[in-house]
Amino acid sequence: MSDRPAFDLVVRNARVATASDSFVSDIGIRDGVIQQLGHGLAAGAREIDAAGRVVTPGGVDAHCHLDQPMAPPVRMADDFDSGTRAAACGGTTTVIPFAAQVKGQSLRAAVDDYHARAQGRAHIDHAFHLIVSDPTPEVLGRELPELIREGYTSFKIYMTYDDLKLDDGQILDVLEVARRHDAMAMIHAENADCIAWLTRRLEAAGRTAPRFHAHARPMLVEREATHRAISLAELIDVPILIVHVSGREAVEQIRWARAQGLKVFAETCPQYLFLTAEDLGIDDSYKGARCVCSPPPRDKQNQQVIWDGLSDGLFTVFSSDHAPFRYDGTEGKKPNGEEVAFQHIPNGIPGIETRLPLLYSEGVLGGRITLQRFVELTATNPAKAYGLHPRKGTIAIGSDADLVIWDEGERTVRNAALHHDVDYTPYEGMALRAWPGVTIAGGEVLWDGQAFHPRRGQGRYLRRGRPSLLPARPTSPRPPAA
Amino acid sequence: MSDRPAFDLVVRNARVATASDSFVSDIGIRDGVIQQLGHGLAAGAREIDAAGRVVTPGGVDAHCHLDQPMAPPVRMADDFDSGTRAAACGGTTTVIPFAAQVKGQSLRAAVDDYHARAQGRAHIDHAFHLIVSDPTPEVLGRELPELIREGYTSFKIYMTYDDLKLDDGQILDVLEVARRHDAMAMIHAENADCIAWLTRRLEAAGRTAPRFHAHARPMLVEREATHRAISLAELIDVPILIVHVSGREAVEQIRWARAQGLKVFAETCPQYLFLTAEDLGIDDSYKGARCVCSPPPRDKQNQQVIWDGLSDGLFTVFSSDHAPFRYDGTEGKKPNGEEVAFQHIPNGIPGIETRLPLLYSEGVLGGRITLQRFVELTATNPAKAYGLHPRKGTIAIGSDADLVIWDEGERTVRNAALHHDVDYTPYEGMALRAWPGVTIAGGEVLWDGQAFHPRRGQGRYLRRGRPSLLPARPTSPRPPAA
Amino acid sequence: MSDRPAFDLVVRNARVATASDSFVSDIGIRDGVIQQLGHGLAAGAREIDAAGRVVTPGGVDAHCHLDQPMAPPVRMADDFDSGTRAAACGGTTTVIPFAAQVKGQSLRAAVDDYHARAQGRAHIDHAFHLIVSDPTPEVLGRELPELIREGYTSFKIYMTYDDLKLDDGQILDVLEVARRHDAMAMIHAENADCIAWLTRRLEAAGRTAPRFHAHARPMLVEREATHRAISLAELIDVPILIVHVSGREAVEQIRWARAQGLKVFAETCPQYLFLTAEDLGIDDSYKGARCVCSPPPRDKQNQQVIWDGLSDGLFTVFSSDHAPFRYDGTEGKKPNGEEVAFQHIPNGIPGIETRLPLLYSEGVLGGRITLQRFVELTATNPAKAYGLHPRKGTIAIGSDADLVIWDEGERTVRNAALHHDVDYTPYEGMALRAWPGVTIAGGEVLWDGQAFHPRRGQGRYLRRGRPSLLPARPTSPRPPAA
Amino acid sequence: MSDRPAFDLVVRNARVATASDSFVSDIGIRDGVIQQLGHGLAAGAREIDAAGRVVTPGGVDAHCHLDQPMAPPVRMADDFDSGTRAAACGGTTTVIPFAAQVKGQSLRAAVDDYHARAQGRAHIDHAFHLIVSDPTPEVLGRELPELIREGYTSFKIYMTYDDLKLDDGQILDVLEVARRHDAMAMIHAENADCIAWLTRRLEAAGRTAPRFHAHARPMLVEREATHRAISLAELIDVPILIVHVSGREAVEQIRWARAQGLKVFAETCPQYLFLTAEDLGIDDSYKGARCVCSPPPRDKQNQQVIWDGLSDGLFTVFSSDHAPFRYDGTEGKKPNGEEVAFQHIPNGIPGIETRLPLLYSEGVLGGRITLQRFVELTATNPAKAYGLHPRKGTIAIGSDADLVIWDEGERTVRNAALHHDVDYTPYEGMALRAWPGVTIAGGEVLWDGQAFHPRRGQGRYLRRGRPSLLPARPTSPRPPAA
Repeated sequence: MSDRPAFDLVVRNARVATASDSFVSDIGIRDGVIQQLGHGLAAGAREIDAAGRVVTPGGVDAHCHLDQPMAPPVRMADDFDSGTRAAACGGTTTVIPFAAQVKGQSLRAAVDDYHARAQGRAHIDHAFHLIVSDPTPEVLGRELPELIREGYTSFKIYMTYDDLKLDDGQILDVLEVARRHDAMAMIHAENADCIAWLTRRLEAAGRTAPRFHAHARPMLVEREATHRAISLAELIDVPILIVHVSGREAVEQIRWARAQGLKVFAETCPQYLFLTAEDLGIDDSYKGARCVCSPPPRDKQNQQVIWDGLSDGLFTVFSSDHAPFRYDGTEGKKPNGEEVAFQHIPNGIPGIETRLPLLYSEGVLGGRITLQRFVELTATNPAKAYGLHPRKGTIAIGSDADLVIWDEGERTVRNAALHHDVDYTPYEGMALRAWPGVTIAGGEVLWDGQAFHPRRGQGRYLRRGRPSLLPARPTSPRPPAA
Repeated sequence: MSDRPAFDLVVRNARVATASDSFVSDIGIRDGVIQQLGHGLAAGAREIDAAGRVVTPGGVDAHCHLDQPMAPPVRMADDFDSGTRAAACGGTTTVIPFAAQVKGQSLRAAVDDYHARAQGRAHIDHAFHLIVSDPTPEVLGRELPELIREGYTSFKIYMTYDDLKLDDGQILDVLEVARRHDAMAMIHAENADCIAWLTRRLEAAGRTAPRFHAHARPMLVEREATHRAISLAELIDVPILIVHVSGREAVEQIRWARAQGLKVFAETCPQYLFLTAEDLGIDDSYKGARCVCSPPPRDKQNQQVIWDGLSDGLFTVFSSDHAPFRYDGTEGKKPNGEEVAFQHIPNGIPGIETRLPLLYSEGVLGGRITLQRFVELTATNPAKAYGLHPRKGTIAIGSDADLVIWDEGERTVRNAALHHDVDYTPYEGMALRAWPGVTIAGGEVLWDGQAFHPRRGQGRYLRRGRPSLLPARPTSPRPPAA
Repeated sequence: MSDRPAFDLVVRNARVATASDSFVSDIGIRDGVIQQLGHGLAAGAREIDAAGRVVTPGGVDAHCHLDQPMAPPVRMADDFDSGTRAAACGGTTTVIPFAAQVKGQSLRAAVDDYHARAQGRAHIDHAFHLIVSDPTPEVLGRELPELIREGYTSFKIYMTYDDLKLDDGQILDVLEVARRHDAMAMIHAENADCIAWLTRRLEAAGRTAPRFHAHARPMLVEREATHRAISLAELIDVPILIVHVSGREAVEQIRWARAQGLKVFAETCPQYLFLTAEDLGIDDSYKGARCVCSPPPRDKQNQQVIWDGLSDGLFTVFSSDHAPFRYDGTEGKKPNGEEVAFQHIPNGIPGIETRLPLLYSEGVLGGRITLQRFVELTATNPAKAYGLHPRKGTIAIGSDADLVIWDEGERTVRNAALHHDVDYTPYEGMALRAWPGVTIAGGEVLWDGQAFHPRRGQGRYLRRGRPSLLPARPTSPRPPAA
Repeated sequence: MSDRPAFDLVVRNARVATASDSFVSDIGIRDGVIQQLGHGLAAGAREIDAAGRVVTPGGVDAHCHLDQPMAPPVRMADDFDSGTRAAACGGTTTVIPFAAQVKGQSLRAAVDDYHARAQGRAHIDHAFHLIVSDPTPEVLGRELPELIREGYTSFKIYMTYDDLKLDDGQILDVLEVARRHDAMAMIHAENADCIAWLTRRLEAAGRTAPRFHAHARPMLVEREATHRAISLAELIDVPILIVHVSGREAVEQIRWARAQGLKVFAETCPQYLFLTAEDLGIDDSYKGARCVCSPPPRDKQNQQVIWDGLSDGLFTVFSSDHAPFRYDGTEGKKPNGEEVAFQHIPNGIPGIETRLPLLYSEGVLGGRITLQRFVELTATNPAKAYGLHPRKGTIAIGSDADLVIWDEGERTVRNAALHHDVDYTPYEGMALRAWPGVTIAGGEVLWDGQAFHPRRGQGRYLRRGRPSLLPARPTSPRPPAA
């Protein structure tokens, strides 16, 4: 040991950004962990000169879909190999995709299956949210509490999609488990009946091009479900996190809930900042299928509402909702190679690699959010919301050495230069002002700005703790002094 | 230099808390600055074993009044000596009191006078807010911009008090200076005319006991002025910070403003969490004069509203509004030694030493706010709001070594044990769960849990920078890509 | 004809009150219709001297249940005979009870059955709302449109009760029929799943006394369903009327909807002004069963919210929601003579006779609402909402001669003095300041302040027109001039 | 008497519209008063066959300026002769212009002067609001209470205009008089300081064309003052009526106030339905001066907000705010014949004759409001708000025989066909769908659709009663029964 350098890696002259602070420092890393911060640290086996560039915590993408089983012929284009490769090249060092229960299946079986899919493939650390689609007494009474205890401390529920949606009574049941066993409940809030009703009307009228996807899911459909989700959570007295909030109407419900003193967290995604319903097509051409996701993108005014919410604290988490389906071929947007009506187009947009560059460029460098807020939204808060903090999501003594060194400078988004297995990006041609120059995960360089350095299978599964965004518990039950 | 230890002081085994993170680390300090964080730091000339206790950044009290000139015979009981002594013993290592312009006086003269008062007396670092009471063309056109450039990057304006209040046109004028020259405007929002009108009515009815102070300043008086302040700031398109928000009605206006996308920050104070209007007296006895402050404390329900706002991000800053007047004697609450009608009682409550222990005990240990939020409210955000971050308000490489090591354990508030020169505390007898065990400022121990170690005159005046809570500026004027 | 007097009846010296006006006039009636208003009208075959007393239009009770089929052994205590008798003695001259579809039954069959129940029994004029519980394609496509065209121009739907509730998709379907065919949709807004969930929890905890009925239906359950109903109506772009609104939370949703420009009408009932949850019992005694209704009464503060809504125009209609179940015996609140858990107690409160005296006494004479508003809420607006205006609901040339002459003077509510077949009134012992002195329906005196003068079977079924509260249609499709 | 016909005038076959009802009837008039309603009335000395046309109460224009003294050379173009002539030809039979106190003048002197101006000139009945601009102790303590008792039961106060505005303390003083002596307070709500500040900035920038009038008075200026007025009224606990509300922001404040249970009434005017800021000019040409009024017209979206408020009950009163200044000549919009900067252009728009036709055409016939609402807004409510009901504002037994018979049919607005002494109308060329066919005042025909029949000097001054929109008083102080 005498010859071993003090550190495996030292990043020198970093402008370190955390969710609260910004300071210039060296970063001393050993065994994949940040050991020291300060000036003039001892030498490392490897050294990288950040040269005053901004260094942020590696991103935590808390909402992404990888290799999730779909009904044939549809298949996700990204598995844990390509998905985490793309993530790393985009500055994300932790992903939390979903182990989804199929109705009739046990939660445990879903988790086991999902572990098998990740096994040996992931380049970066990862955890799994559960998706609860079949809350049987067994699931509610035994499986879910057990899995929460084992570190699956969050789950997602759906208020729409026939094969996933829970009714209000089921939602109350699972929220009660969340409350009792300290899990974070994520909710996809759209009113299923309204969507089905509108879809039937549109279908009957022959309005089935991709752009009608947005007509079938107007903002009030999201607003209603958001209000309902808030009400159910209020009844149980448990925090919830509304995922992929798209615009003004849902935002207003969340603001209202907060003003009532309710703990309602919210997530948004790049598509609600950079796309509009027009990206689903302004005519009936099929190419808009590439931007079919739910909720659909809205309009320019709603983009501003989302920016305001990112800036002022309304949103807690900024995720990709990466849902990778190829446009061409037979397994993606054109099942069996055929164009289908909007309601049959697989929902989702790729974005795991572009999430951070988009927000850094247009948010931070565009003057819309601070660098601290960027870190909070993309890394610290997702880690806190889902029980990974302080191991993940920050640059601090004892945290995993997951880092991004940012290169500022014009860069145009080209799918050809991305690392997912999807054949398009919705942001093709967009001119950004920055891109990750180096991505370090567990103290190793995965992306150097030019090339990906694979660590296939070395990404670790993360057993998670209690979400630190859940309400603090008093150290003693004493009522407030006065 | 060869013999000099690596550090002047090392704090070992600290549970370091920042506004975003919490981690165990040693803290290596040299020349009053934090040089290194990490495990196993080299030895220091002095070492303190935190033994796993929580260490927070030294508090920044951004709203306190020290040795501010008053109309005789009234005099503030605390000058920079006793005031900063009390601050340090309560964990506060930076204060920003007010250099107040008297009508007719130049701003520069007010600043010069105030420097003279601080000179040679302060134990801790300090800066000055300006109070603009006479916005002459000279003040607006030359003095204020110059002083901002010199580092007085914030000022307070009053919507009430005859000798201080500005009319709406004057407020617009000074807000325009804030916008143009990048200062943070603090606003005391109460409607002067309403207060005067109610006061005349109460006086005419012989209702002059201290408790009628609260009757003369109902919540709507604060709400109206808050709405007006927001409107004036909206017209100028400049952020403002509403000081000492007391309850629901003003809070609702601020929430409303935020939902419109306006940058309205807010401060609250311990008196709105721990006192109620009943502390001004439930009968006409004079002793309630001790709790006469403006706005007045409200009721239990409003205390909860303030707690909610602390927890959910509504409030940016938690200050003391320390305004030190003795109860007995001739210079304080009883001018010339006589009990006077409520409208003549000097306004204000002492609290510079109790601010942090109250919030740590009832907020953090009471389970109402996280430790991170505590740090943010009491140190990081005040530093950011007023241009002192990252030098002040955090524990990070390069920041001043201002630290508090917390002792958890029952402790009863006794004025006899406090260090201000006021003869009472409103919180007498209150049982708290923690108190600062050690206060370190600039790397030196000022308070060790038992005794105060004076550094009279060594507290430095701080020239401040641009408030980092002002909106980020885009690095280039390019509109959003997409 | 030469000898026939000019009028069958003249009411002299009436202080006539309409929804907008108040004036002193004689009222000349012939053939059951108001023929003339003015001073010094020609003689009538019969004359009544109102002697300056207030004369209002006969009440229209637009929400009451009479002889509605129930699951045995439960049976409603009032049929069209006793129910309309009680109505008349309380100043109500028109009732609109419900023809309720049983699942599996055709709407037509429900209507036919209900006509048979009214036939030969009613003392006053009446119409039927439909209750749509089974919106089959046949019902939506043929029956409901036909029945609307035949004059059943309103229907009620339920968001709760297992045998009645519609899901969101079904609600959209029936609202679309309302929009297309010009019917007024009434909605009982409570979230069924929440109630079932809470009920199971309460039941499991052995908390089954009547007072737990209120625990199973907290305000948020009503608020959520109200928001959802509003959203569904917004999607269809059709007015709705939320029935029996109980308190603040639903009221806020309705105010919000109106501020968005949505046409959302609302009804409330005496129980939300005069009862509280405590009337369901403060212990587990069973007698609170008498006040079990849905939504449950709330508290004093919510009573004030309802009064404010009556005064300021939030509420359009004030109805009884008369649901007559005896407390003793085997067919009412104690099915088979046994006390049952709260969830099995038949829901409802008698109130058809007390509705007008309660509101006149405490609203008009209590100074809370104007006499004009009383008329609007109890007669004119219900007639307008449901297509009976101007035949019913006002005192005007050509309107039916349905009148109430009010006697002001202390009067204590005693069930013994009421005319329904229910064995209790929730308002027993309450001291009122007025009671109908004379009720005239179709120009005939049914109640003279002492005795009921039956007209069994002479009450006419009313074929209704287009609800005049539905949006006005432009006389031409021209856009607004400018 | 034997030969005298039963009535002086009978209007046959009228479709009578009141604020609540609509019915076909003859109208029997004697001595200027409605004596009978009904079918087949006895003969009148004169008969008019309405032939089924709509007959509404004559309009009550509660906000108009006639012959109000101005600073020379400016002079109002309409005095009581031309002003009431134009009113009558537009269907208005009662006007309530303003007796304005000049600072330094007694209120009594202002009233006396104004009586002298009306004397011998008015063709229709009229009353005066007071304008209180100088609330001296004498005015508050003696004059104003006396004048209220004498029937001047309303007054207007200004929050802007240098020669009229009151500060908040003065507003509280006068509102207290309103509360104590039962007067209706009307408030012009715009923030004077903001307007002055913006005006100085615009002037300094050389932006002085008429269109900059709108830039100097953005919506937030009106919103702020509206919130403040509401707050002051809340403090005094007295109803107020906000005049000429122009758009969304003020509307939202009023909705908010109502939801708090406050009695805040609101008025709007045709200019906020039919004009936009573009009518003040889209370039710097001077002709936009014709539409300079305060608050300025907003935009299309705000027009819709105003329509919604008219429909849903937000607005109580619809007035003209007729302020007659000629465009050409030396006394009007071009003082001394010269174009002046926007801030010196006399404020106001003519509209006394077009008020009713505009609202009838675009509101009633355009399907935006009901006929009942039209009557309520233009006649019944103004009469109720200002103590003239039931003598004015309705068609009822005992009311003055003030009637309008409406001719439906295309008609183009032409100033040449109007009867005021202003040389333009803002609505020139607008195609309307109806116009008054006959105007009857006090039983006499003043306008027959073709010609005006003068009654110069026969219009009566109306001593007014307690505004019936003030809160009802309980007949006894008893608390609510329960």
